[in-house]
Formats: sequence, structure tokens, C-alpha cells
Amino acid sequence: MKGRATWDVRATNFAKKTFNPIRDIVENMNITPHPDKPMIALSIGDPTVFGNLRPAESVVDAVVDSVRSGKNNGYVPATGTLQARQAIAEYMTCPGAPVEAKDVIICSGCSCSLDLCVSVLCSPGSSILVPRPGFPLYTTLAEGFGCTSKYYNLLPEKNWQVDLVHLESLVDDTTVAIVINNPSNPCGSVFPKSHLRAIADIAVKYKIPIIADEIYDNFVFEGEEYHPIASVHPELPVLACGGLTKRFLVPGWRMGWIAVHDRNGAMQEVLGCLRTLSQRIIGSNTIVQGALPDILSKTPQSFFDDTLKQIQVNARYCYESVQKMPGLTPILPQGAMYMMVRINMDEFPEFATDLEFVEAMVAEESVFCLPGKCFNIKNFFRIVLTVPEETMKVACQRMTSFCIAHHTGQKQTKIHEDS
Amino acid sequence: MKGRATWDVRATNFAKKTFNPIRDIVENMNITPHPDKPMIALSIGDPTVFGNLRPAESVVDAVVDSVRSGKNNGYVPATGTLQARQAIAEYMTCPGAPVEAKDVIICSGCSCSLDLCVSVLCSPGSSILVPRPGFPLYTTLAEGFGCTSKYYNLLPEKNWQVDLVHLESLVDDTTVAIVINNPSNPCGSVFPKSHLRAIADIAVKYKIPIIADEIYDNFVFEGEEYHPIASVHPELPVLACGGLTKRFLVPGWRMGWIAVHDRNGAMQEVLGCLRTLSQRIIGSNTIVQGALPDILSKTPQSFFDDTLKQIQVNARYCYESVQKMPGLTPILPQGAMYMMVRINMDEFPEFATDLEFVEAMVAEESVFCLPGKCFNIKNFFRIVLTVPEETMKVACQRMTSFCIAHHTGQKQTKIHEDS
Ligand SMILES: Cc1ncc(COP(=O)(O)O)c(C=O)c1O
Ligand SMILES: Cc1ncc(COP(=O)(O)O)c(C=O)c1O
Repeated sequence: MKGRATWDVRATNFAKKTFNPIRDIVENMNITPHPDKPMIALSIGDPTVFGNLRPAESVVDAVVDSVRSGKNNGYVPATGTLQARQAIAEYMTCPGAPVEAKDVIICSGCSCSLDLCVSVLCSPGSSILVPRPGFPLYTTLAEGFGCTSKYYNLLPEKNWQVDLVHLESLVDDTTVAIVINNPSNPCGSVFPKSHLRAIADIAVKYKIPIIADEIYDNFVFEGEEYHPIASVHPELPVLACGGLTKRFLVPGWRMGWIAVHDRNGAMQEVLGCLRTLSQRIIGSNTIVQGALPDILSKTPQSFFDDTLKQIQVNARYCYESVQKMPGLTPILPQGAMYMMVRINMDEFPEFATDLEFVEAMVAEESVFCLPGKCFNIKNFFRIVLTVPEETMKVACQRMTSFCIAHHTGQKQTKIHEDS
Repeated sequence: MKGRATWDVRATNFAKKTFNPIRDIVENMNITPHPDKPMIALSIGDPTVFGNLRPAESVVDAVVDSVRSGKNNGYVPATGTLQARQAIAEYMTCPGAPVEAKDVIICSGCSCSLDLCVSVLCSPGSSILVPRPGFPLYTTLAEGFGCTSKYYNLLPEKNWQVDLVHLESLVDDTTVAIVINNPSNPCGSVFPKSHLRAIADIAVKYKIPIIADEIYDNFVFEGEEYHPIASVHPELPVLACGGLTKRFLVPGWRMGWIAVHDRNGAMQEVLGCLRTLSQRIIGSNTIVQGALPDILSKTPQSFFDDTLKQIQVNARYCYESVQKMPGLTPILPQGAMYMMVRINMDEFPEFATDLEFVEAMVAEESVFCLPGKCFNIKNFFRIVLTVPEETMKVACQRMTSFCIAHHTGQKQTKIHEDS
């Protein structure tokens, strides 16, 4: 037949399978706050919403200069300007993991970086290994391409380190990549070097490349160390995804990148194809690209320190408060801007799921946290730690009241964060 | 087998099939300019490269204000902020084609808009109808999804209007969309309302939605009129793609959009899926989004008039010059920023193809135009009209010398642009 008999325009499977579980869960949740208590949203991973965390002035100035210069309005290579890629290469280079401008692809935010990585590796019938609990975007992106996500467990009792035996058991001949998210959303965990090496060993053993979601690079609390996974093993090919989003407190600016750590020439085809794929949408805006050399090299260390200090103060305070709340077990984070809390469900017989728990906490206390369900784990919820200190205190008071009101039975033994 | 025996990381078909013919052709071309003559690149569709065309001051100010305000750093909905979508809706609304904020998806440039349209409509085994000559991105985007491009002819002797009989003959049961690019790259043509209606009638007859690439909206010379195709037929569902890129002279800013003209509810599924797809990369940067209401409503008309005047002066001058060059036949443009020139190949026996002609013109005269091959048509080349007037004059002199040097035989009769 020529054309269609009715106006019945169908969307592709690619589009229909692109499915964001967080959005779906949140849209179907009952999140009506208590009418007498202003809502406290500890749910959104956007450090800018409360006004306490702002980008560095020098960063804003660099962007203003970039716009005013009139030099950054035109088309640039789809992978980004040489200067911007060079700045990223310098920023990312570290012992054991040098990066050159030619290895960098600039993208419209880290989501776009991950989209390109998935587009280049995930085909129908393949699978990727993704963390549980984890950021759901990996699965959202892969499903469209007919690629299955297999979930490897993170262990709460081991600071959310990877269950290596489980990870290894999931590798098979369909595995095209292992996704590592370090520091982690939603866990706030930061992997020590030895653990990264153990993960790398598995990847190298089976010759599976890593997609490293390092959007929280360097976002670690005092005393912790951040290591890019590419730096721990000289033979491991890594697509390292990063960006300005979190550390520079500018999620809306959509500045992300991929650094391709080719090893043994394993990533030559992939690198070439990433460059071609970047032409589908022609990268990220030139205003921020023009400012990138200044942003990455001139932002004062004190800016990063101040941000992390605020978050760490909240993390400590919130951890200690939650520890005292009956029926809850917090897992102390080492970085990023989240803390996971286990709900000892036996002690809250009113609620069948973490979702119900979270909904009731909104209804009664106007404190909104995302349920574990959003990250594919049961009986947890996630707290965002970027709120002002005062707000965090109020939130903790309200959560305490909520737990006291609903808790029945004994407080369970704590998980030791340093066990 | 578990994993791989060798480090043999393969890219997906999606990535491998994403292929940009312009880039491929240009990279394999011999474009060594004459050593004594500075290169004049009449090849790049970037109005900003020569410095004569700059964005309006008010637009730059709006962006600076947006950055300085500190209000546009955070995440916004993946489809864009309500204010920005509202501004776009107002900008695009016209008699017969109202647009509301809820119908708008903000994208990272018009390329990204087209990518989303293709992603939502083009599945394996389907086909889209695209113009020849035409912008090659449609095919680049569709191929990855296993969708075939079928080329409908534009008629140079009719101001590059669509060969409607040919267009209709290409419709079959695999057709998922007709792509219309008006005003056109590479033709510089602007379709009159009656012609748009004739195209719309075919689309409605077979119930095929239109993807309208209207990135050159309103970019028409004095005396010409621009009509969005959605405005000509009340029953035609259209995905109208636009952006700031061309008219506002800021290609690097990556601000594009889709306005979904749903008609008879035909596009409900598609609209929903476009919204989901926008979450893959989370739209465009918030700095420009924040400035969009001002940009779209406060840019003085004189700015647009000045831009078009410069281009039109070049168009007239270049058209008249090329008319006098032996062996060449220019087609007068009505808008956009390009002019197509037919090479009467019989009269240049030295050159077997437009590509060879263009290469020789670079080698001898350092004037670089893209060959018709880049746009899927033989025996033409495209001239970009955004260069400074003086440069255009020098280019025309050099092209004249080139034609005189290589031409043999009689000058053919002209095609009349108003025939
Ligand atoms: C783990 C993780 N990866 C990627 C992203 C996306 O970052 P971007 O906003 O740069 O796309 C986020 C955002 O929350 C994230 O938490
Ligand atoms: C016809 C046409 N459509 C789309 C685009 C892409 O526009 P953008 O730079 O906004 O992605 C161009 C750019 O040259 C074009 O000529």
C-alpha cells in the first residue's frame, strides 16, 4: 500500500524503549506534602536548587568574557575546539592515565557522553553490566539499542564496594562493557585504589572495556582519595565520562566529555566512531567551550574545598542523626552528594515497600527522598546532602518524628561503615 | 565463551552507519590553495567565520545577564524551561499554526532536533523522503537506525521547487516521513505558499507526517515571503525544527527546538516519545535558555534586515558575475545564504566531475566551494554568500579567470530564475 489509511503515526521501538524509571516512579508517586510544613526536597541531585552552592565567580567571569569576546559564536569541530579539548586533557591527565586532546570528545553534558558510549558499544543482543544500586540512565540509554542491562551488586556493608564475585559471574559472550560509577550516585561511595584494581583485573581478564561514569570526579570528602579507574591498570581500555556538572555546580550548562583511554589499540574503531557520532548533534555550546581553559585551570582550590566542606558537614550531621532514628541504618558516604539509608522494614510493618515509606514521610513531614526503587534496590532511600545546613537540621528533626511515630520493635545493630 | 579472547572492541552498526558524506568528501579532496593567493572559503555554512556578521548586541547582553543572574545554572526539564518554551511558542505561532509551550522540545541545536525526529520515526526497514540536492544530515541520522533515504528531486529550472510527481512516486508503505527543507541549504530557495500546499496535499493524501527543517525560517530576501509548512494545511502533522543558529548568527550556541504540530491527535505517541527521548541528553544549555525570551522578543528588526541585506547584496552581485562566467549557470536564490551554480560540464572537458572542477578552482585560484556531490547532485557547486562584499568580489574575479582559462565552446542559454 502507498502511505497509510489512517493518521496513525507510530513511534519507533528505540523511542518507546527509552524509559526513565525515576521519572516514571516519581510521576506516579503520591508526593503531597503536609499542608502545614513547607516541603524539603532531599530528592534532586541538583546542587544549585537551594542557592547555598553557587559556581565560582571566576567561572562566571570566564563565561561572560567568552560571550563578550564574540569569538565563540561559530561552528567548531563536532568533538569540540582544540583548546577546550586540550584543557580537558590537561585536567584529566594523571599518573598512569595520560590524556591528549585527540582522545577527548566534548558532549552536551555527561548524559550525552554516556549516550555516545552506549551508542558506540551497545547493539541488539548485547549486554552491559551496571551497578545496583545505581544511576538508572545507563539502562535507559541501552534499552533503546536492544542491549540488556545486567545488574552487579554493590555491598552496603562494604561501603558499597562491588561484589566482585557477582560481577564476574555476570560476564558472558554478550558483555560489551562494564559501567563503573565512582564516586557513586546514589551511594556517595568512593572506591579505594585497590578495589578499582580488582575491578580492572576482571575487565582485563575478560577483555571487556570500561565505561567509567566519573561525573563526581574529585568530589570526595577530606581524607578520601579519588582515582580515575584508567589510572589503576595500564592495559585497561576506558571510556571516561566527566563534565562540569557536579564539581563546578553548573548542571544546566551541559558541558560533558569523554576521554578515550585506548590501550593496545583496542579502542581505535570505537574512538573513530565516537568522533562520527558526535556529528549527529555537534557537541556542546561554544560559549562554555571558550571559557573551559580558564574554568578548568583557574578555579581556586578554595572553591572546591568550600563546596565539599558544606556537603561533608551535612553528611556527618545527617549520618549521626539517622543513626539515632529508630528503624533506619545510614551508610556513611565518602564523597559525591548523597547518602543511602536502609529502612529496616520489619520495624515499620505499616509500610510494604520503601516507596510507601517515602510517600508517608512526604505526606506527614513534607520531607521528600527518592525511594531505593529509583536505583533498583529495595528497602533503602537516598538523601541529597547539598541542602543548607539549617534545612538539613529541620529535615532530620522531621524524619526523627516520622520514625518514632511509625517504628515498632527493636533498633537493629548498625552496619559499620568502616567494616 | 566468557568475555573475549583478544582486545577486539567493536563499534555498533548504529555507529558505523552514521556517516557524514560532506566530511568524507572534504577530507578526501585535494584542497591545496594556490600558494600566492590567500584562500577564500565559500564552503562553510557558518555566517560567523568572516567577522562581518555578528549576533545582535541585545542578544549578547541577554546571555551575559543570564549568566550573571545565577538563576540559570541548575537542571531544568529535559524539554526545556517553561519560559523558554513559551518564548519559542510565541515566536513560532502564526495564523493557521499556533504553537503552545507544551508542544515544544528544546534541543542542543537543530541537528539535535532532527536527530530526535529521526529517532522517533525511523526504524529498520522504514524510509524517509529527503530532498536532492539537500543537506546530508537527514541521511546521516537515518542510516544509523536502518532507515533508507529516498531522494525526491528539486527542479533547478523551477527555482528548486519539488518535483511533485517524483515525490509522490516515492511514497510507499515504508515511508515514515517527508523531510522538507525550506528555505533550503544548499539551494537558497524559498517555497511559495501554493507550492507548500501542494507538498502538504501529498503528505495528507498518504497520511505521512512532515519533518520540516526550518532552520532558515524568515531568512528570506526582500520581496520574498516565508511560510512555515504547518501553516498551509490544517490537517498536516508537522515536526517543525528550528533554532537560533542561522537567523541569530550563533551556530555554536547549540540552541534548537522542535515544535510538534499535532493534528487529529496523530502525533500524540510521537510527542510523548520525543519528551522521553529528550531525557537521553537533557536538552540544551540553560544559559541560552534563560536568555531566550529576550532574544526572541527583543532583537531589533533592523538586525535581521541588515544581515539579509548584506547577503542579498552578495547574492545579486555573485549571481550577475557568475552569469557572465563562461560555462556556468547560477540559480538565483530567494533566501538562506547559498547559491547553487550549474557547471555545464561539456564546456569544461578537462574535468570529469564537479569535484574535479572544484579541486582545480582551489588549486589555481584558492576559491573553495563545496561540490554538488556533497548534496547528492551532479554538475553543481554551492557558493556561500555570507562573506564580506569585498571578498565576494575578489572571489568572483578569480572564478571568472578560472572559467575563462578552462572553458571551451559556446556559453549555453541561461536558465531563467523566474521561469
Ligand atoms: C552518576 C551520574 N552520571 C551522570 C549524570 C548526568 O550528568 P549531566 O548532568 O552532566 O548529564 C548524573 C546526574 O545526576 C549522575 O548522577
Ligand atoms: C538545512 C540545515 N539544517 C540543519 C542544520 C543544523 O543546524 P544546527 O547548527 O542548529 O544544528 C543546518 C546547518 O548548516 C542546515 O543547513
